[in-house]
Amino acid sequence: MKEIQVGVVGYGTIGKRVADAVNAQEDMKLVGVADVKPGRLLSVALLRDYAVFAPKEVRRSMASHGIDIAGTVDDLLAQVDVVVDAAPKGITASNIPRYEEHGIKYIIEGGEKHSLAGRSFSTFGNYAENIGKDKTRVVSCNTTGLTRIYRAIDTAFGVEHIGVYLVRRGSDPVNGDKGPSNAVVPVLGESHHYHDLVTVIPGIAPGCSMAVADPHTLSHVHMLDLTLSREPTREDVYAALDGFPRIRTVDGEADGMGDTAKIAEFYQDIGRLRGDHPEVTAWKEGVIVEGKRMRMPYDVHMVSIPIPENVDAIRALAGNAGAWESAKMTDRALDKFLPMFSKPDLAYWGR
Amino acid sequence: MKEIQVGVVGYGTIGKRVADAVNAQEDMKLVGVADVKPGRLLSVALLRDYAVFAPKEVRRSMASHGIDIAGTVDDLLAQVDVVVDAAPKGITASNIPRYEEHGIKYIIEGGEKHSLAGRSFSTFGNYAENIGKDKTRVVSCNTTGLTRIYRAIDTAFGVEHIGVYLVRRGSDPVNGDKGPSNAVVPVLGESHHYHDLVTVIPGIAPGCSMAVADPHTLSHVHMLDLTLSREPTREDVYAALDGFPRIRTVDGEADGMGDTAKIAEFYQDIGRLRGDHPEVTAWKEGVIVEGKRMRMPYDVHMVSIPIPENVDAIRALAGNAGAWESAKMTDRALDKFLPMFSKPDLAYWGR
Amino acid sequence: MKEIQVGVVGYGTIGKRVADAVNAQEDMKLVGVADVKPGRLLSVALLRDYAVFAPKEVRRSMASHGIDIAGTVDDLLAQVDVVVDAAPKGITASNIPRYEEHGIKYIIEGGEKHSLAGRSFSTFGNYAENIGKDKTRVVSCNTTGLTRIYRAIDTAFGVEHIGVYLVRRGSDPVNGDKGPSNAVVPVLGESHHYHDLVTVIPGIAPGCSMAVADPHTLSHVHMLDLTLSREPTREDVYAALDGFPRIRTVDGEADGMGDTAKIAEFYQDIGRLRGDHPEVTAWKEGVIVEGKRMRMPYDVHMVSIPIPENVDAIRALAGNAGAWESAKMTDRALDKFLPMFSKPDLAYWGR
Amino acid sequence: MKEIQVGVVGYGTIGKRVADAVNAQEDMKLVGVADVKPGRLLSVALLRDYAVFAPKEVRRSMASHGIDIAGTVDDLLAQVDVVVDAAPKGITASNIPRYEEHGIKYIIEGGEKHSLAGRSFSTFGNYAENIGKDKTRVVSCNTTGLTRIYRAIDTAFGVEHIGVYLVRRGSDPVNGDKGPSNAVVPVLGESHHYHDLVTVIPGIAPGCSMAVADPHTLSHVHMLDLTLSREPTREDVYAALDGFPRIRTVDGEADGMGDTAKIAEFYQDIGRLRGDHPEVTAWKEGVIVEGKRMRMPYDVHMVSIPIPENVDAIRALAGNAGAWESAKMTDRALDKFLPMFSKPDLAYWGR
Repeated sequence: MKEIQVGVVGYGTIGKRVADAVNAQEDMKLVGVADVKPGRLLSVALLRDYAVFAPKEVRRSMASHGIDIAGTVDDLLAQVDVVVDAAPKGITASNIPRYEEHGIKYIIEGGEKHSLAGRSFSTFGNYAENIGKDKTRVVSCNTTGLTRIYRAIDTAFGVEHIGVYLVRRGSDPVNGDKGPSNAVVPVLGESHHYHDLVTVIPGIAPGCSMAVADPHTLSHVHMLDLTLSREPTREDVYAALDGFPRIRTVDGEADGMGDTAKIAEFYQDIGRLRGDHPEVTAWKEGVIVEGKRMRMPYDVHMVSIPIPENVDAIRALAGNAGAWESAKMTDRALDKFLPMFSKPDLAYWGR
Repeated sequence: MKEIQVGVVGYGTIGKRVADAVNAQEDMKLVGVADVKPGRLLSVALLRDYAVFAPKEVRRSMASHGIDIAGTVDDLLAQVDVVVDAAPKGITASNIPRYEEHGIKYIIEGGEKHSLAGRSFSTFGNYAENIGKDKTRVVSCNTTGLTRIYRAIDTAFGVEHIGVYLVRRGSDPVNGDKGPSNAVVPVLGESHHYHDLVTVIPGIAPGCSMAVADPHTLSHVHMLDLTLSREPTREDVYAALDGFPRIRTVDGEADGMGDTAKIAEFYQDIGRLRGDHPEVTAWKEGVIVEGKRMRMPYDVHMVSIPIPENVDAIRALAGNAGAWESAKMTDRALDKFLPMFSKPDLAYWGR
Repeated sequence: MKEIQVGVVGYGTIGKRVADAVNAQEDMKLVGVADVKPGRLLSVALLRDYAVFAPKEVRRSMASHGIDIAGTVDDLLAQVDVVVDAAPKGITASNIPRYEEHGIKYIIEGGEKHSLAGRSFSTFGNYAENIGKDKTRVVSCNTTGLTRIYRAIDTAFGVEHIGVYLVRRGSDPVNGDKGPSNAVVPVLGESHHYHDLVTVIPGIAPGCSMAVADPHTLSHVHMLDLTLSREPTREDVYAALDGFPRIRTVDGEADGMGDTAKIAEFYQDIGRLRGDHPEVTAWKEGVIVEGKRMRMPYDVHMVSIPIPENVDAIRALAGNAGAWESAKMTDRALDKFLPMFSKPDLAYWGR
Repeated sequence: MKEIQVGVVGYGTIGKRVADAVNAQEDMKLVGVADVKPGRLLSVALLRDYAVFAPKEVRRSMASHGIDIAGTVDDLLAQVDVVVDAAPKGITASNIPRYEEHGIKYIIEGGEKHSLAGRSFSTFGNYAENIGKDKTRVVSCNTTGLTRIYRAIDTAFGVEHIGVYLVRRGSDPVNGDKGPSNAVVPVLGESHHYHDLVTVIPGIAPGCSMAVADPHTLSHVHMLDLTLSREPTREDVYAALDGFPRIRTVDGEADGMGDTAKIAEFYQDIGRLRGDHPEVTAWKEGVIVEGKRMRMPYDVHMVSIPIPENVDAIRALAGNAGAWESAKMTDRALDKFLPMFSKPDLAYWGR
């Protein structure tokens, strides 16, 4: 299997995490990261010994911050097979022609529209459809989390209808200077989440989504309400969740993890880089089963959830592995800086 | 119609509002309010010229705050037909024997358990069942709001299933020193809301509720998801909501009322006492209709929503009026300090 | 005394309050308010029977919101002696030439730079300097509050040094969709507050200010640290504060007003329009006196504090009264919708 | 130098961090940690291979959570030279007689009163006074941070007066379910901070402190206002801060670290366990020098700031090293899980 040469454009909240995740993979090489602003973040890239690429015109200001540029953005693009574009909204669209000139494959993030890549990606949704393709879009944190839960439950019991009601974080922690502050801001009109699910889960059950944004910064919380084909017990549901990658169940009460702050603390305590928790974290006591209807709340760590799927997307475009094989490779590598993330003994690894 | 003599025990968030609402009614007399702590709040009662009753043992500390006591709590109870108990949790249960000794009717609030009164009340749910009874419990703010919306929609289109997903305020504004702060706290296990609905809406459709608490103080937001018997248009839904008492629809975008903070500001601007909005406020753009399925978010001002229903409950116990007649009397009187609250021209007044 | 004809341009957080305050004055006439956006706020103006003026090009969109325009902005300007410009930042500067063309006096707000009017105003600072002038700038909420406290203490005990350390609200309540959310944002470099004080208090003592912004929306809190010329007792300090207009002292503990949320609740309970508290509210237990050094925290309700001073500024420009006489007129009129605001019996009224 | 045997009683926010810090020291052995509640936290202790001690009566409930107890609390105390008590308020006082029975030295935390140990400790304040003593109290996070800054500035320029105005976090992140929510809660009366400083800095300059609590969870911010003996330049101030242990200066603007959220993100990015930053972090642009007066805001990470000082306190009681030597040992060891924490090249190491 050929080593995949990867570049990351945009070294912000998502880009810096994708860089670390790619850098940890056995079958990938992080050629470098590109950004336009010097400062704290690029210093972090240098600390990791990542090559930093930047436009010529910022070379001087970068140097004044002690950042030695490895080359221009074109220099980076010339060396990679796949580029992950995690630039701010609006910038990504203007970057794409450049990727196409270089004839390289590219991945865009869920903040961008599906139509910009004409295709979306989710490891446990439509990996196969993305194999060998030139470009794709990794769906957003909420949709990525939903896809995993949906697949875990659908595989086990069949899903006939899905309703999901999202309580979104107001802003990412690093944007603590944004809001909201003491207000609930509802999405008025259709929330995009169910429609996004449709783009990555072939044959998904009918359903809907609603969303509000709230003044907290730690994670999104979903209230999920499913109609199933078969009647599970609560233990069946736990088994379905625990038996799927990138999902963790916790006892809120017994484990002292009854809210999103306590969950965040746990992941920091066990030594996770940045306290990241790219696994969906579901409260066991929150699971309610009434006949074929099942409900549960769970926690979605917006900034890290889509990272493993980004790594898988690189592999899919490069044509290097199947979904389950890729997930296995990705997750084991992430254990290097996200201890206890992978599930090495799961039966699914044999699929 | 005999004037109903009313007392309020517990002059806090709910009690002070019930006192003002009772005081504004044509057919009721607020005999007085009772509490045990001097301070800011009782000063407000005096400002309103309400008689303040208190246990003998606090008479001196009351006097030192300039509060002249009209008598003991028993003195108050001796003069009333109905007492509304809005004391803190735990205290209410110990007050009840006293009400029974005095042979007076009493109302408890939704924070108390249904079993404590053995009966619950909601104007548009089960007013008739409460007429002439000795005691009842006015359901909580969330359940009260839900009852109105349910009745409005059920009357118009029939409801076959109700799902409601609540984003609760973390603490009341006056308890800004409480939390949560930067966390989402889910209810793990059944939220009580659907079950509370069952106690006040005879023949309610099957359904469920889920809830989280969040760091904001202005109002609860419900995400409501209904399955209907008939297919309405969005305009039909607006008409059903606007044609029902104690519900207001607003254009979030066009009216600059797209979140709970902007809604709060509006009600303050129009001169409402305390900025209260005992009407459920629904965002028109938030209404989604897909065949027989309909969804919408709306705002529930926790501290004032159950106030009109408390007034109606007094009337029901006293046996003075029917539900619609009582609602009409209550709402018109509330216009005195809550301008634009009543809906004088609605067809329903003729019911 | 001739009735002053007043217009308000910009009907937002400050403009709507200035309009109400002007409308309540015996010696002023609110000719009308001007804005460019229809919606909730202008509906409030109509509810108050204020004439609404707007540019011709928005007449149609106003009409579609049920707002009947009384004329163009020029029509308004043609009828007024003084205009208060409370337009958003950036707009005010472009409005000024128009006021000058019309030959009318104008007032700008504290969010604008001192240099834009070349003069600043504070009733108890430099009223006399503003009498009969063509234009002035009413200093910001924080500076307005500071001026009152400074004057009260300086008059009583002499101030030799002032240090003020401000904890600002992150955003106004209506902008609950802004931040910060879970961050403290310090002013890095000089905060403008002390320097603003210098512009309105002739002969002010030397001093400094520092500031942070925080995730709350109710009010600013100042931590004030003064060096005095004479040693007061705490009772002396209370007397100095209570004996000055637009300052209220409260017992945090005894009155149940120990934080900004409880203070906000009190003002709503007593029936204030919008819960406004244009008086500085100081916690009595917070006053610490150590020899000639004195410290205290107090609450500054950002959106309403500068309103009385705006009314006084109109009178100053119009040349109609002295500072104390104007304050007396302003405050008595504000009692109409801000009960308990004025201090009718204070000795200062005789100054 | 004999290896110091250390136990930690109370495995919560402070205890878990002290355990990790002790475990990293070359000259200490963490014998074990004691607590009474099973759950998430003790699981973390096991993950670290720490021996867990607990009362006999909870052995069964611990076992049911998979926690194998190494012995009773007395078993732990029998093996240690020094115990660090980080139990909840109220519990510590009842633990002390047990430590005295075992004849072991003990350290209590800053949440407890000075009088409980009769002595307080701060590495750069009064290390020498604590050498070989039986017990001491490590002052709180705010006082610890202040001591460092005070010492750095006093050594360089002499401090003649200190004023500090604290904006405290409302609750620790893990207590996100507490408040305040949308309120500022001032300390009414003397804040304890200056008085605490007096207990650990012999000959400290006169001064004062004021404090408020606010709805954020990341860190405290101090606004510091000093009068100095000599006039420094801003560069002199930077040099004094950078030349002192456990203080870091950052460019807020240039480094993208202009608020407490961005500072928190930086420390997480560089790989700190739990994102901890036991160094005081000062914004360079925030430093203002006016003659002999100097002001600056800085960030105090409440949960980790006193950890290095706890380690030093153990060494002081054990009589093993001088203040600077201990600080050097502590800080180098902390680099194992707090990269970039120590300052290996500082001249001070040679003191």
